[in-house]
Amino acid sequence: MQPIQQVAIVGGTHGNEFSGIYLIRQYQRQPELLQRQSFHAWTLFANPQAHSANKRYLDADLNRQFRREDLDNPSHSNYEQSRAKVIDAVLGPKGNPKVDLVIDLHNTTSNMGPVLILTQAGDFYNQLAGYVKMKMPEAVISCDEDHLPAEEHKLLCTTGRYGVIVEVGPQPQSVLRQDVLEQMHSMTQHILDFTDLYNRQQLPELPAAVEAYRYLHSITLPVNEQGERLGMVHKNVQDQDFKPIKPGDPIFKLFDGQELAYEGQSEVYPSFINEAAYYDNNLAMSLNEKIILQVAPVRPSE
Amino acid sequence: MQPIQQVAIVGGTHGNEFSGIYLIRQYQRQPELLQRQSFHAWTLFANPQAHSANKRYLDADLNRQFRREDLDNPSHSNYEQSRAKVIDAVLGPKGNPKVDLVIDLHNTTSNMGPVLILTQAGDFYNQLAGYVKMKMPEAVISCDEDHLPAEEHKLLCTTGRYGVIVEVGPQPQSVLRQDVLEQMHSMTQHILDFTDLYNRQQLPELPAAVEAYRYLHSITLPVNEQGERLGMVHKNVQDQDFKPIKPGDPIFKLFDGQELAYEGQSEVYPSFINEAAYYDNNLAMSLNEKIILQVAPVRPSE
Repeated sequence: MQPIQQVAIVGGTHGNEFSGIYLIRQYQRQPELLQRQSFHAWTLFANPQAHSANKRYLDADLNRQFRREDLDNPSHSNYEQSRAKVIDAVLGPKGNPKVDLVIDLHNTTSNMGPVLILTQAGDFYNQLAGYVKMKMPEAVISCDEDHLPAEEHKLLCTTGRYGVIVEVGPQPQSVLRQDVLEQMHSMTQHILDFTDLYNRQQLPELPAAVEAYRYLHSITLPVNEQGERLGMVHKNVQDQDFKPIKPGDPIFKLFDGQELAYEGQSEVYPSFINEAAYYDNNLAMSLNEKIILQVAPVRPSE
Repeated sequence: MQPIQQVAIVGGTHGNEFSGIYLIRQYQRQPELLQRQSFHAWTLFANPQAHSANKRYLDADLNRQFRREDLDNPSHSNYEQSRAKVIDAVLGPKGNPKVDLVIDLHNTTSNMGPVLILTQAGDFYNQLAGYVKMKMPEAVISCDEDHLPAEEHKLLCTTGRYGVIVEVGPQPQSVLRQDVLEQMHSMTQHILDFTDLYNRQQLPELPAAVEAYRYLHSITLPVNEQGERLGMVHKNVQDQDFKPIKPGDPIFKLFDGQELAYEGQSEVYPSFINEAAYYDNNLAMSLNEKIILQVAPVRPSE
């Protein structure tokens, strides 16, 4: 086992998601909240320009710029593409990173609660999921395209050897809620505690299996030929993140009064329902399957 | 009694408050939802430029540009100041208006429910409040500086002979929720129904008195000498719009862990708690007193 020596906690990857920005400020004031015996931890404010403009981003979504191929492409030159190259140089470079663990802090307007998003598979991630779920039973574990190799991932946190997202909602854009900030702080502290115990081979006994949600695909709002929206997320689905949707359940309400049903073949679990930031692409929600992560025993049986 | 002949329903005064924008589109598609026997009603999209930019405004808050003095000041020339002069020419001019009733549709990120905001005092307003409250008991009646003459009001709706705001939340900026859209539609329909019955002197018996909240003043977040925020709205207060705050109740949580209490002398009722759009000015919430509006009898006793 290769210990985790460098941990980066990133806030403000999206400029109007306030919890991470305020949380890293708090950690800068109180570095004792960050440090543990076995690693060095520090903070990074990923997109202060977007925060100053009170926007998610200036030119392009920063958290979609981290494919190795895009980082290496000099014609990707807008503000966030440039900033991504700088961040990759600081945290990565992806593929041979300086940082062992990147924790990227995010908010959603959706009613998802505190979510730990894993972007890769493996014992480290599954043990982390088991530990967080044990310490914070209200946490949701989400697996986001964990079949993709890191170099193909677009997410900032995939620059590190390990990378996770702490995603907490509901919180409107450009708002700071105390309850959401406290949930983000708690989950981040559990991740830091886990990492220290992992390094020191002092992990407690973990659950053998953890329930999680694996991303399948996103669905879009119904639009007409001009690209204008014809409807909205059905109120039965609004706020019901991670609650099952069955084939035939109404998921859209059209402005002409019609309801559209979910036409998939099997039960799915939605997330990012009616997320403000996804309106650009008319995304209505993500759909997930429920899975079980097997957690490797902490002390292999002799 | 001078009948109401022209009614304007305004959406998109703030470009990222989606319910009003979608509601006027629906009314344009289905004009039968707008029309009543005794008046002509039509819609106005106040700030489509801000909506295209997915922002509240481009240069300045459009809904603060309607003081008569500012409308008459040619040096007020930025985008929203210019647009305000155009809207005043269409709906007003304030002081001698073409439009008898302006209904301006707004959203808040605060947990205020469906709110009817009255900007002037008088029998018409109080009867309207009584009617809306009778038809929609969950509605909140709010009086916003109704002691000011219309020419000193900054709000768009004060361009008309009568003007009200339909304010519904909670809804994040740049999101459309079905439940919020339906509440906005319901309240708007009740206002149109009232106006028609008022014109035709067919109003039903109304409650003699209606509970309402009158705006007192706003309070700001604690900041340091550099203007940086030192804390946030306390979680005990978050989402508790129109619930009483007593002297000594905690209202702010500072980032250093301290709590700050409300230091006023008497019980007050907050609104616009932690509203995203008010962060520019560090406004934490508005404070109101509870009042009783006397509703004039519909048919004066002989």
